[in-house]
Amino acid sequence: MPYVKYFQMATVKPDGRPANRTVVYRGFLGDTPDITMVTDLRSGKVQEIRANPAGEFAWYMPETRDQFRIAGDLTVVAHDSATMQKERQEAWAKMSPGGRAQFAWPVPGFPRLDDENPDAFDIPEELISDPNAVLENFCLVVMRVDEVDHLSLRKNRRWHHTRKGGTDEWETVEVNP
Amino acid sequence: MPYVKYFQMATVKPDGRPANRTVVYRGFLGDTPDITMVTDLRSGKVQEIRANPAGEFAWYMPETRDQFRIAGDLTVVAHDSATMQKERQEAWAKMSPGGRAQFAWPVPGFPRLDDENPDAFDIPEELISDPNAVLENFCLVVMRVDEVDHLSLRKNRRWHHTRKGGTDEWETVEVNP
Repeated sequence: MPYVKYFQMATVKPDGRPANRTVVYRGFLGDTPDITMVTDLRSGKVQEIRANPAGEFAWYMPETRDQFRIAGDLTVVAHDSATMQKERQEAWAKMSPGGRAQFAWPVPGFPRLDDENPDAFDIPEELISDPNAVLENFCLVVMRVDEVDHLSLRKNRRWHHTRKGGTDEWETVEVNP
Repeated sequence: MPYVKYFQMATVKPDGRPANRTVVYRGFLGDTPDITMVTDLRSGKVQEIRANPAGEFAWYMPETRDQFRIAGDLTVVAHDSATMQKERQEAWAKMSPGGRAQFAWPVPGFPRLDDENPDAFDIPEELISDPNAVLENFCLVVMRVDEVDHLSLRKNRRWHHTRKGGTDEWETVEVNP
């Protein structure tokens, strides 16, 4: 079911209000439990994460009726970031041409000015066909996962998993649903 | 498709980090655009909303590939709230017995102590059969909607709807997706 590739990512805006949007799961980071997605350097969430890295994902699986709430700190890997450029490049290579084209579109969230530039959303093939030529606006986003709250609605059971301090060890407590 | 009854609600915790979870849509409030859901007085979101009423919903419709991001302030209607008791009572009357039973369960999020009380989740029929006998833990939550960001992924178009000040008038701007 393709649907389980989507989850909702909450962050906090500089004005202290929450932001929430649906994003596409792009895999774990190597063999860690850290979760990756991609975004546009010009999008609101990049500014939000840079001001406050705290995030929480709500990931609901309608087939099994499992909900995962996943919390941790987010890192934006932009074109000029010092680390994880290899992972950013690999994420670009996995994108479809249509997915890549978005990073050459006009600035997301700005008023749409089709009259001034009717072809603004038609991106030349050569700009997006090379799996190595990563567009500057393309960012990888990584959550270092510190807490997972797993609710099974089918079983009416719930578990809270917490990373122990800065380690890779986890502890689990069953809690009331 | 039952799936569209769920959306994800982000709030901000007292420690400044975001919280996010899947909730069930319970209808608009009367003929307003305000959105209702229900929750348990003992749940984390009640404390969060009382400390900071700002919320944002992410509501994704996989069939049509529409995403709505809906922002506004949240109000908890508890057993002792001064307003909207009629609406709280009506929401209770619409719940299934299974849905009502949750409000008599042990405190959500606390460690599960089945050994001490193996029948804690078996709620007597008489406690939940009366549509008028609203359990004290049952709360209605209402979002006063101030902003709606609608992204059509199928059409690659996006509109931002904003309530004009304190009025019931709205303005719409098409923005870049």
